[in-house]
Amino acid sequence: ASNGSGDAQKIKPANERSRFLEVYNQLKTELLADSKTFQFTPESRVWVEKMLDHTVPGGKLNRGISVPDSLRLLKERELTEEEYFLSSSLGWCVEWLQGYFLVEDDIMDHSVTRRGQPCWYKIPKVGMIAINDGIVLRNHIPQILKRHFKGMPYYTELLDIFNEVEYQTSLGQMLDLITTPEGEVDLSKYIMPTYIKIVQYKTAYYSFYLPVACALLMAGEKDEAKFEAAEKILVQMGTYFQVQDDYLDCYGDPAFIGKIGTDIEDTKCSWLVVQALQRASEDQKNVIKENYGKKDPSKVAIIKQLYKELNLEKVFEDYEQESYVALIAAIEQQESLPLQAVLKAFLGKIYKRQK
Amino acid sequence: ASNGSGDAQKIKPANERSRFLEVYNQLKTELLADSKTFQFTPESRVWVEKMLDHTVPGGKLNRGISVPDSLRLLKERELTEEEYFLSSSLGWCVEWLQGYFLVEDDIMDHSVTRRGQPCWYKIPKVGMIAINDGIVLRNHIPQILKRHFKGMPYYTELLDIFNEVEYQTSLGQMLDLITTPEGEVDLSKYIMPTYIKIVQYKTAYYSFYLPVACALLMAGEKDEAKFEAAEKILVQMGTYFQVQDDYLDCYGDPAFIGKIGTDIEDTKCSWLVVQALQRASEDQKNVIKENYGKKDPSKVAIIKQLYKELNLEKVFEDYEQESYVALIAAIEQQESLPLQAVLKAFLGKIYKRQK
Ligand SMILES: [Mg+2]
Ligand SMILES: [Mg+2]
Ligand SMILES: [Mg+2]
Ligand SMILES: [Mg+2]
Ligand SMILES: [Mg+2]
Ligand SMILES: [Mg+2]
Repeated sequence: ASNGSGDAQKIKPANERSRFLEVYNQLKTELLADSKTFQFTPESRVWVEKMLDHTVPGGKLNRGISVPDSLRLLKERELTEEEYFLSSSLGWCVEWLQGYFLVEDDIMDHSVTRRGQPCWYKIPKVGMIAINDGIVLRNHIPQILKRHFKGMPYYTELLDIFNEVEYQTSLGQMLDLITTPEGEVDLSKYIMPTYIKIVQYKTAYYSFYLPVACALLMAGEKDEAKFEAAEKILVQMGTYFQVQDDYLDCYGDPAFIGKIGTDIEDTKCSWLVVQALQRASEDQKNVIKENYGKKDPSKVAIIKQLYKELNLEKVFEDYEQESYVALIAAIEQQESLPLQAVLKAFLGKIYKRQK
Repeated sequence: ASNGSGDAQKIKPANERSRFLEVYNQLKTELLADSKTFQFTPESRVWVEKMLDHTVPGGKLNRGISVPDSLRLLKERELTEEEYFLSSSLGWCVEWLQGYFLVEDDIMDHSVTRRGQPCWYKIPKVGMIAINDGIVLRNHIPQILKRHFKGMPYYTELLDIFNEVEYQTSLGQMLDLITTPEGEVDLSKYIMPTYIKIVQYKTAYYSFYLPVACALLMAGEKDEAKFEAAEKILVQMGTYFQVQDDYLDCYGDPAFIGKIGTDIEDTKCSWLVVQALQRASEDQKNVIKENYGKKDPSKVAIIKQLYKELNLEKVFEDYEQESYVALIAAIEQQESLPLQAVLKAFLGKIYKRQK
């Protein structure tokens, strides 16, 4: 289970993407302008612009674009220019939040590449400065919110929700870091409740709940119960999404997913190894202990062979089917049809995805 | 100029300190309790408690305690129990913010000790997890604010001010990091405007302006102009404070300041070297180039000798006197006498300090 390695939805048509990227360019221009808050030196302006372009817009942008998409479904009509700009700005805040967490995560995980490029901290002259650059990214979010949303009736709620979700994500990262510390593998910690908790906190809240919560706020939703119902379903959906991510890491087509999975080599607390440990005999557990988390391709092959013996492909198919049925049932219990449409749109984009 | 190495005020009487620490204990208990936001695992609760105790309350607490102190002066009376608790909670938010920045700063600066203890990232099993722990600290601030201030008329302003000051601090850190990158000293960048800008952003806003802004909000102040006037004076005072810090690093009594200064060895962009470069002949500049930033004690002695030749002790005394006169004049232009009292209390605590 690695965070941010996949994305919530299929790649958008180029024109939708480029319209969304125009909003990025405006927000970037605003953040790089001098203000009462800060006057840039020429070097610092160049630095921040380079950092933003490297760390924020290079992903699939599905989390971000899902905010205007969701608002359109909630309003049941096309958005005005202003609604599109504002909801896309919130979408970019989600992307900024992800950029911040990925910058810090890559340093902590000693990762080398991200989105087909070197990680930001791996860029010459950056190094540990990246820690603070991530913090700058994080601080851009309230700057964007203040500039475009201060005075709106939901401004305070917006700040609270971003704060809450950032906190939950940091706690998910903490659980992940202390469960799977470097150089000290303890497979007895790789159990389903731990797996679920890590995934929900470190990925599902910001990737699935946050974009919809933003759209609900912009749509004028005030009913706390609706946020909670959406949260419950979206966190469940985010969990299912991460299970898919772990499954595809091993069984996906590298040509399709754009990379070769390395969760086995990296000793990841993946859904597959958790399922395997749950089903393994004592002998099989020893096979896992001796072969999991090793770079040696023959050991990776032994793990994959064991997954086959334990029939994990079928276990996944059953999980996928059950998740889908449970999610559809939960969605259809929602009173609001537009909210149902939003949730079904999310689910439709990930169900049986191949990448 | 190293941030966080000194503190804004003299050490408080033990009973004032212990009353303030009681508030820390309550806030910590609240943060470690399970809630809708997060349910701790036993390991994660132990981890966060250890991290908090190591990184938050170990400083002199002068920034934090200055919030209730300032509120008392603004109200011109003793505080009620509730006012004391709330203003101290804001004081702790300032301490939490500092803890967060120091955790990250120590990693970026490869520091070894902090407040007489190993830096948090140097503790066994912590390492790079400290990056995320700093982020958890940061996220505790809005949790504290939400729990105790949501619904107050100034809640949104409080969130905005903490966000603004955190952003300014991160930008100050960035300026510092890109001006004085590791292993690549360029003394031509060590000029006064750069020095002033780094110091104001990375230290003065959070150490001097933020505590007073918190007290003004709690006192019901709504006049934007008052915040701006206080900000201008307090940022100037914070600059003066950091100049003192740099001066004491070289000229202070180690027995008194509790450590042996190493700014010369560490190639710091200190006020002293900036002043020296400003006054040095071409020959003297070469002496600085060849001897600044070296561990060799004889080279450090050569720099100190040059400072003597350039009469920097006198330059500092003049600066201190001028700063004091200018600050008093600016303070006395404030209409509000209680605000004058707050500002004079800050100044009184740092003027001619020996540690
Ligand atoms: Mg993955
Ligand atoms: Mg990672
Ligand atoms: Mg990670
Ligand atoms: Mg210092
Ligand atoms: Mg430092
Ligand atoms: Mg530093």
